[in-house]
Amino acid sequence: MGVGGLFANAAQREHVPAGTIIFRENDQGVHMFGVVNGAVELRARGRVVTLIEEGGVFGELALIDHSPRSLTATAAVDTTLAIIDTHMFLFLIQETPSFALEVMSSMAARLRAYGA
Amino acid sequence: MGVGGLFANAAQREHVPAGTIIFRENDQGVHMFGVVNGAVELRARGRVVTLIEEGGVFGELALIDHSPRSLTATAAVDTTLAIIDTHMFLFLIQETPSFALEVMSSMAARLRAYGA
Repeated sequence: MGVGGLFANAAQREHVPAGTIIFRENDQGVHMFGVVNGAVELRARGRVVTLIEEGGVFGELALIDHSPRSLTATAAVDTTLAIIDTHMFLFLIQETPSFALEVMSSMAARLRAYGA
Repeated sequence: MGVGGLFANAAQREHVPAGTIIFRENDQGVHMFGVVNGAVELRARGRVVTLIEEGGVFGELALIDHSPRSLTATAAVDTTLAIIDTHMFLFLIQETPSFALEVMSSMAARLRAYGA
Protein backbone atom coordinates (compact mmCIF):
# COMPACT_ATOMS: atom_id res chain seq x y z
CA MET A 1 0.00 0.00 0.00
CA GLY A 2 1.23 3.47 -0.83
CA VAL A 3 0.83 6.39 1.53
CA GLY A 4 -2.35 7.30 -0.32
CA GLY A 5 -4.34 4.72 1.55
CA LEU A 6 -3.10 5.97 4.90
CA PHE A 7 -4.31 9.53 4.57
CA ALA A 8 -6.90 9.34 1.82
CA ASN A 9 -9.78 9.58 4.24
CA ALA A 10 -8.08 11.78 6.83
CA ALA A 11 -6.88 14.72 4.76
CA GLN A 12 -8.43 17.61 2.88
CA ARG A 13 -8.53 17.06 -0.88
CA GLU A 14 -8.00 19.33 -3.82
CA HIS A 15 -8.51 18.68 -7.52
CA VAL A 16 -5.93 20.34 -9.76
CA PRO A 17 -6.12 20.35 -13.57
CA ALA A 18 -3.09 19.29 -15.65
CA GLY A 19 -0.51 22.07 -15.75
CA THR A 20 -1.43 23.64 -12.40
CA ILE A 21 1.59 24.83 -10.43
CA ILE A 22 1.08 23.51 -6.89
CA PHE A 23 4.08 25.32 -5.44
CA ARG A 24 7.19 27.07 -6.73
CA GLU A 25 10.85 26.82 -5.80
CA ASN A 26 11.59 29.23 -2.92
CA ASP A 27 7.95 29.52 -1.80
CA GLN A 28 7.37 29.14 1.91
CA GLY A 29 5.36 25.97 2.46
CA VAL A 30 3.26 24.70 5.34
CA HIS A 31 1.73 21.60 3.70
CA MET A 32 2.85 18.34 2.26
CA PHE A 33 0.81 16.53 -0.37
CA GLY A 34 -0.19 13.01 -1.26
CA VAL A 35 -1.18 12.04 -4.78
CA VAL A 36 -4.61 10.40 -4.45
CA ASN A 37 -4.77 10.00 -8.21
CA GLY A 38 -2.95 11.56 -11.13
CA ALA A 39 0.74 12.54 -11.18
CA VAL A 40 2.94 15.49 -10.20
CA GLU A 41 6.24 16.58 -11.71
CA LEU A 42 8.94 18.04 -9.46
CA ARG A 43 11.40 20.36 -11.21
CA ALA A 44 14.60 22.07 -10.07
CA ARG A 45 15.57 25.07 -12.19
CA GLY A 46 13.36 23.79 -15.00
CA ARG A 47 14.76 20.25 -15.06
CA VAL A 48 12.39 17.40 -14.09
CA VAL A 49 13.78 15.70 -10.98
CA THR A 50 11.06 13.14 -10.41
CA LEU A 51 7.47 12.20 -11.17
CA ILE A 52 5.28 11.45 -8.13
CA GLU A 53 2.52 9.00 -8.96
CA GLU A 54 -0.57 7.72 -7.17
CA GLY A 55 0.15 6.94 -3.52
CA GLY A 56 3.34 9.01 -3.47
CA VAL A 57 4.05 12.09 -1.36
CA PHE A 58 5.92 15.34 -1.93
CA GLY A 59 6.52 18.65 -0.21
CA GLU A 60 7.48 16.91 3.05
CA LEU A 61 10.74 18.86 3.44
CA ALA A 62 8.84 22.03 4.34
CA LEU A 63 7.23 20.22 7.29
CA ILE A 64 10.47 18.61 8.41
CA ASP A 65 12.95 21.49 8.25
CA HIS A 66 10.71 24.54 7.64
CA SER A 67 12.87 25.77 4.75
CA PRO A 68 11.46 27.22 1.51
CA ARG A 69 10.44 24.84 -1.28
CA SER A 70 13.47 23.38 -3.05
CA LEU A 71 11.46 22.34 -6.12
CA THR A 72 8.56 23.45 -8.28
CA ALA A 73 5.59 21.03 -8.30
CA THR A 74 3.25 20.90 -11.31
CA ALA A 75 0.29 18.61 -11.98
CA ALA A 76 1.39 16.46 -14.95
CA VAL A 77 -2.22 15.37 -15.58
CA ASP A 78 -5.55 16.12 -13.89
CA THR A 79 -4.74 15.22 -10.30
CA THR A 80 -6.39 14.83 -6.90
CA LEU A 81 -4.18 15.80 -3.96
CA ALA A 82 -4.49 15.11 -0.26
CA ILE A 83 -3.29 18.14 1.69
CA ILE A 84 -1.51 17.47 4.97
CA ASP A 85 -0.63 20.20 7.46
CA THR A 86 1.91 19.96 10.27
CA HIS A 87 -0.66 18.82 12.80
CA MET A 88 -1.84 15.94 10.55
CA PHE A 89 1.76 15.08 9.64
CA LEU A 90 2.78 14.68 13.30
CA PHE A 91 -0.43 12.78 14.03
CA LEU A 92 0.20 10.34 11.15
CA ILE A 93 3.82 9.78 12.22
CA GLN A 94 2.73 9.13 15.79
CA GLU A 95 -0.24 6.91 15.03
CA THR A 96 0.89 5.03 11.91
CA PRO A 97 4.58 4.05 11.81
CA SER A 98 4.00 2.82 8.25
CA PHE A 99 3.34 6.44 7.25
CA ALA A 100 6.78 7.45 8.57
CA LEU A 101 8.33 4.58 6.64
CA GLU A 102 6.53 5.60 3.45
CA VAL A 103 7.72 9.20 3.76
CA MET A 104 11.25 7.90 4.33
CA SER A 105 10.94 5.63 1.28
CA SER A 106 9.90 8.58 -0.84
CA MET A 107 12.88 10.59 0.41
CA ALA A 108 15.20 7.60 -0.06
CA ALA A 109 14.13 7.26 -3.69
CA ARG A 110 14.96 10.93 -4.29
CA LEU A 111 18.34 10.60 -2.52
CA ARG A 112 19.16 7.54 -4.61
CA ALA A 113 18.19 9.46 -7.75
CA TYR A 114 20.87 11.98 -6.80
CA GLY A 115 23.43 9.28 -6.13
CA ALA A 116 23.34 10.48 -2.53
CA MET B 1 18.21 16.64 21.31
CA GLY B 2 19.87 14.78 18.45
CA VAL B 3 19.07 11.19 17.64
CA GLY B 4 22.09 10.18 19.72
CA GLY B 5 20.18 10.57 22.94
CA LEU B 6 17.33 8.45 21.67
CA PHE B 7 19.31 5.34 20.94
CA ALA B 8 22.50 5.83 22.93
CA ASN B 9 21.45 3.40 25.61
CA ALA B 10 19.47 1.05 23.41
CA ALA B 11 21.94 0.18 20.68
CA GLN B 12 25.17 -1.79 20.38
CA ARG B 13 28.25 0.45 20.28
CA GLU B 14 31.47 0.29 18.34
CA HIS B 15 34.60 2.42 18.64
CA VAL B 16 36.30 3.14 15.31
CA PRO B 17 39.65 4.93 14.98
CA ALA B 18 40.03 7.90 12.61
CA GLY B 19 40.31 6.72 9.00
CA THR B 20 38.30 3.50 9.48
CA ILE B 21 36.03 2.73 6.52
CA ILE B 22 32.64 1.85 8.05
CA PHE B 23 31.06 0.83 4.75
CA ARG B 24 31.80 1.24 1.06
CA GLU B 25 29.66 2.36 -1.88
CA ASN B 26 27.83 -0.68 -3.32
CA ASP B 27 28.20 -2.81 -0.17
CA GLN B 28 25.04 -4.53 0.98
CA GLY B 29 24.04 -3.05 4.32
CA VAL B 30 21.78 -4.23 7.13
CA HIS B 31 22.56 -1.56 9.74
CA MET B 32 22.22 2.14 10.18
CA PHE B 33 24.49 4.09 12.50
CA GLY B 34 24.28 6.93 14.96
CA VAL B 35 27.30 9.04 15.85
CA VAL B 36 27.54 8.90 19.67
CA ASN B 37 30.69 10.99 19.53
CA GLY B 38 33.19 11.85 16.81
CA ALA B 39 32.36 12.47 13.15
CA VAL B 40 31.87 10.49 9.93
CA GLU B 41 32.48 11.60 6.34
CA LEU B 42 30.18 10.36 3.58
CA ARG B 43 31.73 10.30 0.11
CA ALA B 44 30.33 9.60 -3.36
CA ARG B 45 32.95 8.62 -5.89
CA GLY B 46 35.66 10.17 -3.72
CA ARG B 47 33.90 13.52 -3.22
CA VAL B 48 32.78 14.41 0.34
CA VAL B 49 28.98 14.78 0.35
CA THR B 50 28.46 15.49 4.02
CA LEU B 51 29.96 15.26 7.49
CA ILE B 52 27.80 13.56 10.13
CA GLU B 53 28.52 14.86 13.61
CA GLU B 54 27.53 13.85 17.14
CA GLY B 55 23.83 12.96 17.34
CA GLY B 56 23.50 12.49 13.57
CA VAL B 57 22.61 9.30 11.74
CA PHE B 58 23.70 7.69 8.46
CA GLY B 59 23.24 4.47 6.55
CA GLU B 60 19.45 4.62 6.97
CA LEU B 61 18.75 4.11 3.26
CA ALA B 62 19.78 0.45 3.46
CA LEU B 63 17.10 -0.15 6.11
CA ILE B 64 14.45 1.80 4.23
CA ASP B 65 14.83 0.51 0.66
CA HIS B 66 17.25 -2.44 1.04
CA SER B 67 19.48 -1.19 -1.78
CA PRO B 68 23.30 -1.29 -1.68
CA ARG B 69 25.15 1.58 0.01
CA SER B 70 25.12 4.72 -2.13
CA LEU B 71 28.06 6.30 -0.27
CA THR B 72 31.32 5.37 1.43
CA ALA B 73 31.42 6.18 5.17
CA THR B 74 34.76 6.88 6.88
CA ALA B 75 35.47 7.91 10.47
CA ALA B 76 36.86 11.46 10.20
CA VAL B 77 38.21 11.29 13.77
CA ASP B 78 38.15 8.62 16.51
CA THR B 79 34.43 7.90 16.70
CA THR B 80 31.90 5.93 18.75
CA LEU B 81 29.00 4.55 16.73
CA ALA B 82 25.65 3.18 17.80
CA ILE B 83 24.70 0.29 15.53
CA ILE B 84 21.01 -0.12 14.72
CA ASP B 85 19.58 -3.15 12.96
CA THR B 86 16.22 -3.40 11.21
CA HIS B 87 14.47 -4.68 14.32
CA MET B 88 15.72 -1.76 16.44
CA PHE B 89 14.97 0.71 13.64
CA LEU B 90 11.33 -0.37 13.40
CA PHE B 91 11.05 -0.41 17.19
CA LEU B 92 12.42 3.15 17.48
CA ILE B 93 10.07 4.42 14.75
CA GLN B 94 7.11 2.80 16.44
CA GLU B 95 7.93 3.83 20.00
CA THR B 96 9.56 7.25 19.54
CA PRO B 97 8.06 9.44 16.80
CA SER B 98 10.87 11.93 17.46
CA PHE B 99 13.32 9.30 16.15
CA ALA B 100 11.39 9.15 12.86
CA LEU B 101 11.47 12.95 12.67
CA GLU B 102 15.21 13.01 13.32
CA VAL B 103 15.88 10.46 10.59
CA MET B 104 13.72 12.53 8.23
CA SER B 105 15.63 15.69 9.22
CA SER B 106 18.90 14.00 8.42
CA MET B 107 17.57 12.91 5.01
CA ALA B 108 16.09 16.38 4.41
CA ALA B 109 19.46 18.00 5.04
CA ARG B 110 21.05 15.70 2.47
CA LEU B 111 18.28 16.38 -0.07
CA ARG B 112 18.68 20.12 0.43
CA ALA B 113 22.43 19.76 -0.05
CA TYR B 114 21.65 18.29 -3.47
CA GLY B 115 19.20 21.05 -4.29
CA ALA B 116 16.58 18.30 -4.38
